[in-house]
Amino acid sequence: MAAIPTTPASAPLQNDLLLRAALGQPTERVPVWLMRQAGRILPEYRAVRERLSGFKELVETPELAAEVTIQPVDLLDVDAAIIFSDILVVPEAMGCTYLMEERRGPVFPQPLRSAADAERLQVPDVDQALGYVPAAIRITKERLAGRVPLIGFAGAPWTLLAYMVEGGGSKTFSRARAMLVNEPALAHGILQKVTDTTIAYLKAQIAAGANLVQLFDSWAGILSPSLYEEFSLRYLRQIVEGLQDTGVPVTVFAKGAFFALEGIAATGCHTVGIDWNTTPAMARQLCGPNVTLQGNLDPAALLGPDAHVVAEAERMLAAFGTQRYIANLGHGVYPETNPDRVRTFIRTVKAWQG
Amino acid sequence: MAAIPTTPASAPLQNDLLLRAALGQPTERVPVWLMRQAGRILPEYRAVRERLSGFKELVETPELAAEVTIQPVDLLDVDAAIIFSDILVVPEAMGCTYLMEERRGPVFPQPLRSAADAERLQVPDVDQALGYVPAAIRITKERLAGRVPLIGFAGAPWTLLAYMVEGGGSKTFSRARAMLVNEPALAHGILQKVTDTTIAYLKAQIAAGANLVQLFDSWAGILSPSLYEEFSLRYLRQIVEGLQDTGVPVTVFAKGAFFALEGIAATGCHTVGIDWNTTPAMARQLCGPNVTLQGNLDPAALLGPDAHVVAEAERMLAAFGTQRYIANLGHGVYPETNPDRVRTFIRTVKAWQG
Repeated sequence: MAAIPTTPASAPLQNDLLLRAALGQPTERVPVWLMRQAGRILPEYRAVRERLSGFKELVETPELAAEVTIQPVDLLDVDAAIIFSDILVVPEAMGCTYLMEERRGPVFPQPLRSAADAERLQVPDVDQALGYVPAAIRITKERLAGRVPLIGFAGAPWTLLAYMVEGGGSKTFSRARAMLVNEPALAHGILQKVTDTTIAYLKAQIAAGANLVQLFDSWAGILSPSLYEEFSLRYLRQIVEGLQDTGVPVTVFAKGAFFALEGIAATGCHTVGIDWNTTPAMARQLCGPNVTLQGNLDPAALLGPDAHVVAEAERMLAAFGTQRYIANLGHGVYPETNPDRVRTFIRTVKAWQG
Repeated sequence: MAAIPTTPASAPLQNDLLLRAALGQPTERVPVWLMRQAGRILPEYRAVRERLSGFKELVETPELAAEVTIQPVDLLDVDAAIIFSDILVVPEAMGCTYLMEERRGPVFPQPLRSAADAERLQVPDVDQALGYVPAAIRITKERLAGRVPLIGFAGAPWTLLAYMVEGGGSKTFSRARAMLVNEPALAHGILQKVTDTTIAYLKAQIAAGANLVQLFDSWAGILSPSLYEEFSLRYLRQIVEGLQDTGVPVTVFAKGAFFALEGIAATGCHTVGIDWNTTPAMARQLCGPNVTLQGNLDPAALLGPDAHVVAEAERMLAAFGTQRYIANLGHGVYPETNPDRVRTFIRTVKAWQG
């Protein structure tokens, strides 16, 4: 099941700020990147996207995924690239296919609703079913030639279950949550399969050259603290442990889950992503001193004028401090954001002296 | 602008548990009601609704609004009624009309986007523009004949601005948030008009007989702590102060705003609503000992079997304690909930001995 380690085409890193920050080593300045930096904010991305039949063609074509992954490094001067992909490639590889509909978002034509549906869910050979992602990582690494580290990622098992059971996005994900309280054993069965697949998948990304991996628990915030412990944290811990011997740092970002920050920090992960609802002081208090924090500018701050972006970024930097910290937004950058505001944000972080 | 006080047809209350709990007076058992208890979970509600042209007809017809308000008192045995209405009647009365579309939710055909749009927004004579709500309250009070208290309510100004500027529901409300950072003066102008209208509107509800009023800040959770302080808390404080001389207790429920609980408790309100992401211990710690807490069962718990409902309700009751506490859900009851699970929840609270 584990990916066959290959020798990644990895030139020595010229900028390893992200990795040093994640590992708790001293950094001479704060590293910065943005969630969803590769994507709709860049006209250069839209130009690539418009030539294609759809979003999935871009995700599944390594050459193109590598191209849009590198765009923000060239155009925005960020301190890390993140492989262009989608968390829903894992359900797809497990046999739960999705469609990406414009405006509506992801739709699963055959959602998981019963034991029989869950039975059909496979733990695939990731090299076969998801080989296009490590392939994109290899091309990206070669082209980056050590300029900045490359981040790999996957969705957290709870978030993937939420989509697969619900059949798409939802305000409440009440079908998925109903499964947790009515058929906990069924839910645990699905979550374990997703966890096993995810460990193998992230190992394959690391073998291909990913320098750090991030887990996105996008729908963490709709669970109560006790359900989150039972149906999400437990599997995040398994994944973090499963990746321990790779030596590659792991980031966990659980949106809306301030209540779980203490538990997330205790998974053994290296970095905890913080959303913009949580103050830096509260985040540090809940996570303790031994993990790196990443975040947490309100993505709406980048919709304001330049002076607002600078003021808000500096307020954030002053509050987090310069060590054990990676500057980012508190969630993905909004599509309507002017790339020049993003550049202002990045310049402000890089100029910050603490 | 203030409503002319009328003498409400209020028989002495036979069950005033809710009010005593809100005022911090001793209660011999925990009072219980449910957000959205009057509505889609009850077949009796759907029977009324199906005879009508639409949701707004029900809201605007006092006789019918009173009928569905009383249904959960008769059918579920709750300790309070809450007037059947919608927070969007205030924008409507101010000249910003909405449509309630099945499945899609509210839509504002002419959203507020510019200074000229905001200029057109009126602070109306509430007795004229919103008289149907106090009228429904008067009918309800007469029919309740003192069985339980009646709760009035309004939306928080930030939440109403979010809808009016965005033009409807949204995952990010990024247009509304962009206004806060780009045109703060414009946003404050709108919020002040909404606040003035809301104070007059809630006074009219109280004059008609509402025994307690609740402010719903449904979109609190998409703001950063600093934007929440500037664009929401400031106006909540004005409303709480504006109602002080009525002697009627005020509840503030700000969904997703754990970061603001301390500030909300400090508005002078009597009760703070708690969502299901916040543990009772954390809520009490942040709010301090001098306010009543209301909440916070995960609405998804009611989608589980009876034994699950009992266990989760008892866990919640044990954590909150029996005094300065009103049992409720952490958000509105989900439409697909079986009313029998709601009855189990209510019975469990009423039987609880602490």
